[in-house]
Amino acid sequence: MALIVQKYGGTSVGSVERICAVAEKVMANRARGDDVVVVVSAMSGETNRLVALAKSIADPPKAREFDVLLSTGEQVTISLLSMALEARGCPARSYTGAQVHILTDSAHTKARILEVDDQRIHADLAQGTVVVVAGFQGIDTEGNITTLGRGGSDTTAVALAVALKADECQIYTDVDGVYTTDPRVVPEARRLDKICFEEMLEMASLGSKVLQIRAVEFASKYNMPLRVLSSFKEGPGTLIAPEDETMEKALISGIAFSRDEAKLTILGVPDKPGVAYMMLGPISEANIEVDMIIQNMGADGKTTDFTFTVHRNDYKTALDILQNIAQEVGAREVRGDEHIVKISLVGVGMRSHAGIASTMFKTLADEGINIQMIATSEIKISVVVHEKYLELGIRSLHAAFDLDSESVS
Amino acid sequence: MALIVQKYGGTSVGSVERICAVAEKVMANRARGDDVVVVVSAMSGETNRLVALAKSIADPPKAREFDVLLSTGEQVTISLLSMALEARGCPARSYTGAQVHILTDSAHTKARILEVDDQRIHADLAQGTVVVVAGFQGIDTEGNITTLGRGGSDTTAVALAVALKADECQIYTDVDGVYTTDPRVVPEARRLDKICFEEMLEMASLGSKVLQIRAVEFASKYNMPLRVLSSFKEGPGTLIAPEDETMEKALISGIAFSRDEAKLTILGVPDKPGVAYMMLGPISEANIEVDMIIQNMGADGKTTDFTFTVHRNDYKTALDILQNIAQEVGAREVRGDEHIVKISLVGVGMRSHAGIASTMFKTLADEGINIQMIATSEIKISVVVHEKYLELGIRSLHAAFDLDSESVS
Repeated sequence: MALIVQKYGGTSVGSVERICAVAEKVMANRARGDDVVVVVSAMSGETNRLVALAKSIADPPKAREFDVLLSTGEQVTISLLSMALEARGCPARSYTGAQVHILTDSAHTKARILEVDDQRIHADLAQGTVVVVAGFQGIDTEGNITTLGRGGSDTTAVALAVALKADECQIYTDVDGVYTTDPRVVPEARRLDKICFEEMLEMASLGSKVLQIRAVEFASKYNMPLRVLSSFKEGPGTLIAPEDETMEKALISGIAFSRDEAKLTILGVPDKPGVAYMMLGPISEANIEVDMIIQNMGADGKTTDFTFTVHRNDYKTALDILQNIAQEVGAREVRGDEHIVKISLVGVGMRSHAGIASTMFKTLADEGINIQMIATSEIKISVVVHEKYLELGIRSLHAAFDLDSESVS
Repeated sequence: MALIVQKYGGTSVGSVERICAVAEKVMANRARGDDVVVVVSAMSGETNRLVALAKSIADPPKAREFDVLLSTGEQVTISLLSMALEARGCPARSYTGAQVHILTDSAHTKARILEVDDQRIHADLAQGTVVVVAGFQGIDTEGNITTLGRGGSDTTAVALAVALKADECQIYTDVDGVYTTDPRVVPEARRLDKICFEEMLEMASLGSKVLQIRAVEFASKYNMPLRVLSSFKEGPGTLIAPEDETMEKALISGIAFSRDEAKLTILGVPDKPGVAYMMLGPISEANIEVDMIIQNMGADGKTTDFTFTVHRNDYKTALDILQNIAQEVGAREVRGDEHIVKISLVGVGMRSHAGIASTMFKTLADEGINIQMIATSEIKISVVVHEKYLELGIRSLHAAFDLDSESVS
């Protein structure tokens, strides 16, 4: 008999019918003898409705009150799911974040979980009751309602799984697992049976929006096995677990990518200590996140060239800031390009194998794709290319690294 | 400087615009130097929406979970009102029933308030903060969310006023006070400046749906002055307070009525002890509330006739039950009439003045209105008449007892 924490997102509980389907799914698990704790999000659309209400009153709304408002979304879902379970003869009890003391810091709208009280939940489970907990929310030490920010329900599920010493934390979503890459781009993309935490973190942060990155970090820190599954389709999903001996030793687990990149370059900056900070300080003060950064010696040996990427939404602002800086520091020129994308190979197998990079570069060169930037880490290699090469680049790499589903058998 | 508890009902907070208007009203009170605690209901329509959601999943839904669901309605309003206050520069904090420990019994969907923790609220008030509390909800000793049943927000307001030792509890609604009778029936009806608790209880229970009867009982028990006011119109409203010397010694304060009555009569029941219980036991077991009851000796001296009134919705069920009973006890006949109404004169002045009843009967007789039943108490006289006489009866009594607005000056 295992203890399973299951999390169902907004789409999975988006209607009365779907909530009833979740109830059936939970009961099927119990019928197999497992204890089940369910974490749910707000019904899809509900959070947006509440946000719109708030903004029509105050923009920005007071953060403390915004959390009081948003937390009602999950509270509706926990009650409806518990009713659906009870109506089917399955004992169930709903709990808000406050009721099971999901203690967080006081950073309203983006709080972090500090502690979870597992006693009440264990007592219910011992009596054969399914426990349904509101995701995304908690309370601080003063009893104020807090929320964890978008996607926080995944984090709630992992935190509960850790606190309860669950055997597995299952994240039900609208895809049936983690894929080698986006199947909309590469129809041959295949579902991974297993992937390790580090790989998942690189995949998630690079744009495979299956799991919240915070939740994966949390699970990784406590070695809690995570499983991504579909709410709508039977199947084993993808297990995300600590790296171990039995893990398939693929060189590359997947190809992540990000469409919404833009690149900025400042040329001919007089080279002296602190120049990188002079460029990036004002960018970061404007709350713009910088991704890849490259600094090269200039052609004359006395100046330096400096290139970095930002989200495409921040391109115009970043360009303005950089042009001001260029004048201040006496740089020669500022260039920008908002038609770039990033493609990344991810895989723990990369660590012990040379030649991944050269295969990658050769594959792209064979297709006539020019590489504009390169960045590497222990388990990933990222390249920046023109946006028109996104699909071609991913598909050719997917085939070159034997990720296509035909190549598995 | 006074401490005021104000309650705004669903219509008063029915839209973003109205919530903002309530914020302005609260701030006007604070500008006069008063400390303000605000109790709000769910936005009008919201509770019905939630009830429909629940019933589409389970009918009846599990009571514990139903309360978790319904309580979100008020939680939305407290956050929006607090945002509106904060956006206008007025410090405000919202609290759910749980957060200010509105402790109730565990009777889900119809819980009763046992205790309120006033410390947190007093601390906020001392700092100049407006406190906004969710009406209608509380928690039991185990931390389960409970609700007080329809109209429970009035009760929350009174309970808070009592716990905080407030100077006055103001109930904002869509009428500007308590009237001598329904102005839709008698255009000359006038707003009462003051009315005592007992009178208000008779008026409320007889169908003047301005205040929840439980809230009036609560206020009466603790001598907490209540004031009914309009959210939409300036004015002093009606003060409901303990009977005192200064109170206007009107013979009659108002005329209450109830349209939805039905009458059942069982004739020729063999007279023996327990006959009333034999009639009414099965009626009450069917959850039918009985209002007026009259028992008369039958014409033959050996049998008895028995008449009572019920809500018109229960008429058919009650008639069926009574026909079964009639056979069992060997009664002669069952008669029913679902075209009756009840008109009641209410006033503490009645206690010390004879002749009210005779004036009432004469007034009705002069208009040719036949009285079918009569019931009296210390401060009210009720008559049952055919429904076609409702308006005529009320208007003629209103004039006869000098309640018309012209007669005041």
